[in-house]
Order: sequence, then structure tokens, then C-alpha cells
Amino acid sequence: MQFGRHISGQFNAELEAIRTHVLTMGGLVEQQLSYAMQALHKQDLELARQVIRGDHKVNAMEVSIDDACTRIIAKRQPTAKDLRLIIAIIKTITDLERIGDVATRMAHVAIESPASKERRFQVSLEPLCRQAIAMLHQVLDAFARMDVEAAAQVHKLDDRLDSEYEAVIRQLMTYMMEDTKNIPHILQVMWSARAIERVGDRCQNICEYIIYFVKGKDVRHLGDQSLDDVLNIDSDP
Amino acid sequence: MQFGRHISGQFNAELEAIRTHVLTMGGLVEQQLSYAMQALHKQDLELARQVIRGDHKVNAMEVSIDDACTRIIAKRQPTAKDLRLIIAIIKTITDLERIGDVATRMAHVAIESPASKERRFQVSLEPLCRQAIAMLHQVLDAFARMDVEAAAQVHKLDDRLDSEYEAVIRQLMTYMMEDTKNIPHILQVMWSARAIERVGDRCQNICEYIIYFVKGKDVRHLGDQSLDDVLNIDSDP
Repeated sequence: MQFGRHISGQFNAELEAIRTHVLTMGGLVEQQLSYAMQALHKQDLELARQVIRGDHKVNAMEVSIDDACTRIIAKRQPTAKDLRLIIAIIKTITDLERIGDVATRMAHVAIESPASKERRFQVSLEPLCRQAIAMLHQVLDAFARMDVEAAAQVHKLDDRLDSEYEAVIRQLMTYMMEDTKNIPHILQVMWSARAIERVGDRCQNICEYIIYFVKGKDVRHLGDQSLDDVLNIDSDP
Repeated sequence: MQFGRHISGQFNAELEAIRTHVLTMGGLVEQQLSYAMQALHKQDLELARQVIRGDHKVNAMEVSIDDACTRIIAKRQPTAKDLRLIIAIIKTITDLERIGDVATRMAHVAIESPASKERRFQVSLEPLCRQAIAMLHQVLDAFARMDVEAAAQVHKLDDRLDSEYEAVIRQLMTYMMEDTKNIPHILQVMWSARAIERVGDRCQNICEYIIYFVKGKDVRHLGDQSLDDVLNIDSDP
């Protein structure tokens, strides 16, 4: 992929290497989230421990990509679209790292949960978690192709995740009311649900960075309608 | 304050202007959090609405500072400490904006809460919220002076906030068990408590950016002990 209009092939190769690194980090985070969901669902403690052990890899990637971005700014003094790409990457990896933390938190809930009789509370998280993982997968795909249309589509998926989240919370609330001694455990499950719902918000952030990179417009804090308007303007060089 | 060793007075003035802008944004976020706490505590719906209306100012400041940072990188091509300052600012304002969102969320809870009989649930948030505001105040102070020792001190305060948070959650859980029909409302209060606890984590992030700027070391994902070790090394030019 050709970024800005600079003529240095070496610079292009460096940018491409960072971008690949971000996609690798994204793939790892997606895997962590998927394993955490399985660990919760199947009460697989070994898989949960693997997720917890894996978090340091996500953290290390964040630090390493951040460092590469700072070095490329200092060395190559990018402007316009190249600079926007680097800024977009610096912000994207913060969100990816926090999604990684969600996976770790879910893995801890899997380990701390009491035995099998409580499993029905966790099962209710599965569709929510699948939706969040699908959203992350799609936003990484949009990032790989720097596709603003795809980014805008993913941005809108968050409403569905929010509805699913509300349904999960309502369901868990009825379990709480049925038997108050389950409250502490159900609260743990609710925190996980909340964290998964926040994955959607973080995916939306990444969509906004993709649009910022391609269009040169900061679309944070705008509604979906304004976002559609931005898509109709020409890309910024 | 003298940043890097560049000789352009104009550049220094531009950096100083951005830094002042960050402090203004920080002051506004602190005020929003403080007003949101009062709105919850005193059931002051007008104040709650004022907090919600004020959020767009916080958002606008984030966008504007981000834009100023990108422009200064493109125009001045900073390296070393100047560049670290700008990267630290770009990351700091993201955390400040999210703390602003916490204030807005609390204001919504104040508005949606049923009448005065439920006030005792909200009162229990006050000490937690005061601690979070104090932590934010101190980290902004450390940022103003780019004081790593102060930043490291604030970083350690988060443990106290976490303990207070755990106590609040335990207390609210007993209210839930006492009378299950209060569960939906108490959950709202719990979400606020959780959000306030996250303010501490965001303040810790800002501490880490201050240390990164002064020392040139990325201290994220290290424990407090390693953080102390970093403080003993010389500042990076």
C-alpha cells in the first residue's frame, strides 16, 4: 500500500512494517478474546491461565509499536497522510491493548467462578462476546485495507452490541432477584458483560482513526449521520 | 519551562501554548467530575444537566489539542524530548476526555435516579469520588510541573482508591440483598462507582506519560517497584 507521496522506498517499507505489526497485535488480541470466551463457557481453567499469561505479549507489542512510531517520526519527519497514519496507529494500539485487558479480566472471572452449577450465568455472555469478536475482526479487516466504507459499517454495528448487552443485563438481574445469594457471582459476570460492551466502543474508536487517516477529518464525537457526510468528501492527500 | 535544546523561541512558545491548553482541559474535567458528584449527592438536576451540556467542551478541547499536536509535528519536526512531550500530550488528552465521560455518566445517573428515599445509595459514592478528584488534581499538578517524583506518588494512590471501591461495592451488595426491588437502581450506582474507580487507572496512565516525557522510559505495564527504579535514572535529554 502506497501511503503519502514521499519518494523514499525505505520509508514506505518502514511504515508497512509498523502497519503489519499492528495487524499482528490485533490478531493476537482477537485470539485472546476468543480464548477467554471459550475458557468462561467451558470452564477451561488451563485456557484461562493461558490468556492471562498471554497478556504480557499484547502489552509488549503496544510498547514496541509505540516506540517504532516515535522513532519514525523523529527520523523521517513525516507530514500529511504519513503523519496521520502514525497518529492513527498510536491511538489504535491503545484501544487494542485495552481490549486485551478485557480478555484477561474474563479469564480471571473464569478462574474465580464457583463450580458448574453457575454456568448458566456465563453462557448468557456467549452471543454478546461473539458479536464483539466479530466487530473486532471486521475493524481489523477495515484497518488492513484502510477502507473507510467498511469502517463506517462497523461503527454502526455498535448499536446491536448495545442492545444485546442490555438484554444480558436484564436477564442477569432476574437471576439476582431469584436468589440473592448468587448476587456476588452474578456481579462478576455483569462486569465481564460491561467490559465486552466496551470492546464495541473501542472498535468504534479504531473506525474513527481509519476515517481520520483516509479523509483527514476527525469524526470523533459526531453522530452516525455526520459520519456518513464525511464519507462523501474526497480523501485528503 | 524549557523543553528540548532547540533554539527557536517561537517553537517553545507553541509547545507552551499546547501545554497550557492541556491544563485548561484538565481543570475543566476536574470541575465536571466535582459538579457531577455534587449533582448526585444533592440530587441537583440542574447541575447534572449543566455537566451533560459541558461535555461537548471537553470533547472539543480534545480534538483541538490533538490537531495542534499534529500540526506542530508536521511544521517543527520535533525530536527527542520535544517529540516525547507531544506524544505524552496526545495520550494524556485521551485519558482526560474519558474522565470527562465518567462525569457525564454520573450526571445521567443523578437525573435518572428515583426520588430522595434512594439517596443513601448515592451518598456512599462521595468519599470514593472525592479521592478520585484529589488524584486527578494531583496528577494535573505533576503534569504542570512535569514532576516525576510527584507523578510516582500519585501512581501509588490508586491502591487506596481500589480499596475504597471494594468497600463501596460490598456495601451496595448488602443493600441489594436486603431488598431485591432496589437492584436495578443500585446497579446504576455500582456502574458509577466502577467508572470512578477507572478514573484512578486513567490518572495512573497520565503519571506514566509524565515519566515517559522526563525520563524517556516507557513504564507502562511495570509494577510500582520498577517504577521506583526508573526514577533513579537520569532524565533523558
